Amino acid sequence: MKSKVNRELPDDLMNKLDYKPFETTEIGHPEIQRVAPKVHVSTGDDKIVDSIKQVVADTVKDGMTISFHHHFRNGDFVFNQVMRVIIDAGIKNLTLAPSSLTGVMNDMVIEAIKAGTITNITSSGMRGSLGDFVSHGGLKNPVIFRSHGNRARAIEHGDIKIDVAFLGVPSADRLGNANGMEGNAVFGSLGYALMDAQYADQVVLLTDNIVDYPNTPASIKQTQVDYVVKVDKVGDPDKIGSGATRFTKDPKELKIASMVNDVITHSPYFKDGFSFQTGSGGAALAVTRYLRQSMIDNQIKASFALGGITKPTTDLLNEGLVKKVMDVQDFDKGAADSMHTNGNQQEIDASWYADPDNKGAMVDQLDVVILSALEIDTKFNVNVMTGSDGVIRGAIGGHQDAATGKLTIISAPLVRGRIATVVPDVTTVVTPGDSVDVLVTEFGIAINPKRTDLIAALSNIPGLPVYKIEDLQKMAEKRVGTPKPLEYTDRTVAMIEYRDGTVIDTVKEVKD
Amino acid sequence: MKSKVNRELPDDLMNKLDYKPFETTEIGHPEIQRVAPKVHVSTGDDKIVDSIKQVVADTVKDGMTISFHHHFRNGDFVFNQVMRVIIDAGIKNLTLAPSSLTGVMNDMVIEAIKAGTITNITSSGMRGSLGDFVSHGGLKNPVIFRSHGNRARAIEHGDIKIDVAFLGVPSADRLGNANGMEGNAVFGSLGYALMDAQYADQVVLLTDNIVDYPNTPASIKQTQVDYVVKVDKVGDPDKIGSGATRFTKDPKELKIASMVNDVITHSPYFKDGFSFQTGSGGAALAVTRYLRQSMIDNQIKASFALGGITKPTTDLLNEGLVKKVMDVQDFDKGAADSMHTNGNQQEIDASWYADPDNKGAMVDQLDVVILSALEIDTKFNVNVMTGSDGVIRGAIGGHQDAATGKLTIISAPLVRGRIATVVPDVTTVVTPGDSVDVLVTEFGIAINPKRTDLIAALSNIPGLPVYKIEDLQKMAEKRVGTPKPLEYTDRTVAMIEYRDGTVIDTVKEVKD
Repeated sequence: MKSKVNRELPDDLMNKLDYKPFETTEIGHPEIQRVAPKVHVSTGDDKIVDSIKQVVADTVKDGMTISFHHHFRNGDFVFNQVMRVIIDAGIKNLTLAPSSLTGVMNDMVIEAIKAGTITNITSSGMRGSLGDFVSHGGLKNPVIFRSHGNRARAIEHGDIKIDVAFLGVPSADRLGNANGMEGNAVFGSLGYALMDAQYADQVVLLTDNIVDYPNTPASIKQTQVDYVVKVDKVGDPDKIGSGATRFTKDPKELKIASMVNDVITHSPYFKDGFSFQTGSGGAALAVTRYLRQSMIDNQIKASFALGGITKPTTDLLNEGLVKKVMDVQDFDKGAADSMHTNGNQQEIDASWYADPDNKGAMVDQLDVVILSALEIDTKFNVNVMTGSDGVIRGAIGGHQDAATGKLTIISAPLVRGRIATVVPDVTTVVTPGDSVDVLVTEFGIAINPKRTDLIAALSNIPGLPVYKIEDLQKMAEKRVGTPKPLEYTDRTVAMIEYRDGTVIDTVKEVKD
Repeated sequence: MKSKVNRELPDDLMNKLDYKPFETTEIGHPEIQRVAPKVHVSTGDDKIVDSIKQVVADTVKDGMTISFHHHFRNGDFVFNQVMRVIIDAGIKNLTLAPSSLTGVMNDMVIEAIKAGTITNITSSGMRGSLGDFVSHGGLKNPVIFRSHGNRARAIEHGDIKIDVAFLGVPSADRLGNANGMEGNAVFGSLGYALMDAQYADQVVLLTDNIVDYPNTPASIKQTQVDYVVKVDKVGDPDKIGSGATRFTKDPKELKIASMVNDVITHSPYFKDGFSFQTGSGGAALAVTRYLRQSMIDNQIKASFALGGITKPTTDLLNEGLVKKVMDVQDFDKGAADSMHTNGNQQEIDASWYADPDNKGAMVDQLDVVILSALEIDTKFNVNVMTGSDGVIRGAIGGHQDAATGKLTIISAPLVRGRIATVVPDVTTVVTPGDSVDVLVTEFGIAINPKRTDLIAALSNIPGLPVYKIEDLQKMAEKRVGTPKPLEYTDRTVAMIEYRDGTVIDTVKEVKD
């Protein structure tokens, strides 16, 4: 069978895993029966456990689904400590269901797979040695990749049923009231972990900072927590911040950022009360800086900024250019500290952020979204999962989710080194072209042909050349040539779900 | 059959309603499967409905369970508007499941019962004409009275399955992000209503104040709300405040308050980091004032204050005498305003406050609790539901829940007018004597005999005479005589649940 973006899907796996192929970006109005966890009743007075070894012995059994969050990013000290104990305990056949996997976890995941401890994985993404390992057939069962909103959906549907969640926090009291805003290793919003805290049958907090009862604000509540484990350190504060914190000086990135800003300011969405999600990284920060100046020049204020939040965005809040900031995660300490002190920054969970099966998620209200791409093809389909060599080296993150915004802009260079970004067909379809509106490269922009309104609005703007995407693709090809087709085995190493839980594409084992 | 407090329970009703009799105040460690609501998926863009009539037509069907909150207390303009429309629509056989019923709702409830619109009620309590009506057999099916914690438990178990919740709020945006802190008719914490918002299949907000999207802080979230209805006024700010806001000048109340303070300060619980719940009313405010001075004199600070919060308690927070305030409801505008601005005041839902089937509720951590009583008997059983005439005129509130604190003090005058408070047997057992530690009257105190530690600690304190409770009962009887026994019919008009969902007592129809 095929998904609506024309990708062949393996019948056997689709049937075995009870999957439907991706059909449409429209979610419609289904009626959903949510699920709920079991609660082991107690007064909460005996939650403190001395060691990870003890809590693992008390909670994890063969065949269970365990989860972690990735808010510590590459400063995470929790995942490896817990997995070490689980592997050493000889536990087998676990499903690993973290909000995402960061590079610092790679070696341990590979070891756990080899030991038979982990036999299934669902994640937002994976990179580096783990992506390589999986792409070369290291895990027997296919990885299930889900966006942040889709993970929330899957948890709320019961598609992911978490038996034990291990959640690291920079502060907690003895009953488990916890937040990500106080302590040594702060990261701000606990947005992704709030799903695990609410839906897991057993919730284990790990912290290096047990504070007086009751700890407030309580992002995670004592009513959700079974165990609190004191560890030496939950994370390295210097490695929690993700990506650039400074404005880029790369002329190509600056040019793209400037053109992204032109697209926004000449679109019908740039008016008082508009909303946006810019994301992280040096180029995103540059967009935020250009946008700031345009907002001042045009006396326009935004109603809200959404997503992974950075300090340049909270600066806009403090300047009064943005009225509210909605944080599902914070990418730097500046944004995390600001959430703690500024009442106009609201911590939101992943469901509120982006679950499509909801009574309205924040992403449904977004006007302007800027997203990146490893590849984008002439059908505007975007790949943020695999490299041009077919190897897994990315993450869906909120890409599919935020792409449902009214003006979805993909910001990407035409080529990266000797590799084309704009291609005839992306290696892996993650976000369907149907939800992408404009591609911005350093040479010019391309507009999705179905957006005739945007074509009218954005044509004939000085310094903003508009191309057909096929022309941009040919420009890229002219520069870097036509790569040799990739070779794969028949084996499926990963399923890419669309945010509604259908399958949009798969990843095959690469042939060396 | 009988409950453990020796009350005869009607076998037929107990079996028909699948009830067990009350056995013990110990909750133990059951494993509970929580329930979850249905979600009608949408992007949230069409939630605004023009009229209550329209939203009732879209949501309420014969036989459903509907709910309201009572945070507006006697300033509520929401309940009567909605019920008027439901009665006029000819809808029948509804179960009314509000967090409680206040006097301003009485006439409308009686009309709805007479019309056949309401045929079942579960509530924390009822007073005035409605209590009288029910006590005289006005409702065919028995009312189910539940404490605030027990209502949360029942909702989380599915014992109460809310089809439609009608929740009035002083501010909401067009998607339903709402709080009780901003607008004209503010009441502070939405604690009780948060249960309905989380568990009802359909959630209707009513507000007189639609604010810019996104409204923060979002106590109720857009992910929980189906409809937002604009009404002229949700409440009368002058009538939302409950009970006294000023220190009492009644010498008897002052004497009791002073002795309550003596009991607290001479107990082993009065030490740095202790916690307390004082409640509302002039006498409670007086206790808070005495306690404040004792805390200053002894350089003792409290870790937290819990419950329905008043301004004198938030004043302690601002003075640094209390570190955290946990608000399930706020009894005056001062407390509500303080919750809005003070990060050390945490809004908590009724489950976190007091659900016994939890991973630890706040009440489980309470050291000192001061509660009132209509009657208390020589077994220390407390009645807060019926008058000495057998007529319903009260509410369980958090009484059963908070009584699980380490030092539970009942503060009550020995007699009220010609009616004894301390009696051989209370008219209706609401809170079992097993969870009550000390009775404080204006003549002296009585200590539950099982608390030998408190008898040792509190004997021989100047100005704090200690009696056997039987002696206090005889003193009361000597003053007001022995009342004629009440006469009832065989008909049960109300079941009193203990907080774990068992039945502790019933209320019979009074004979005129």
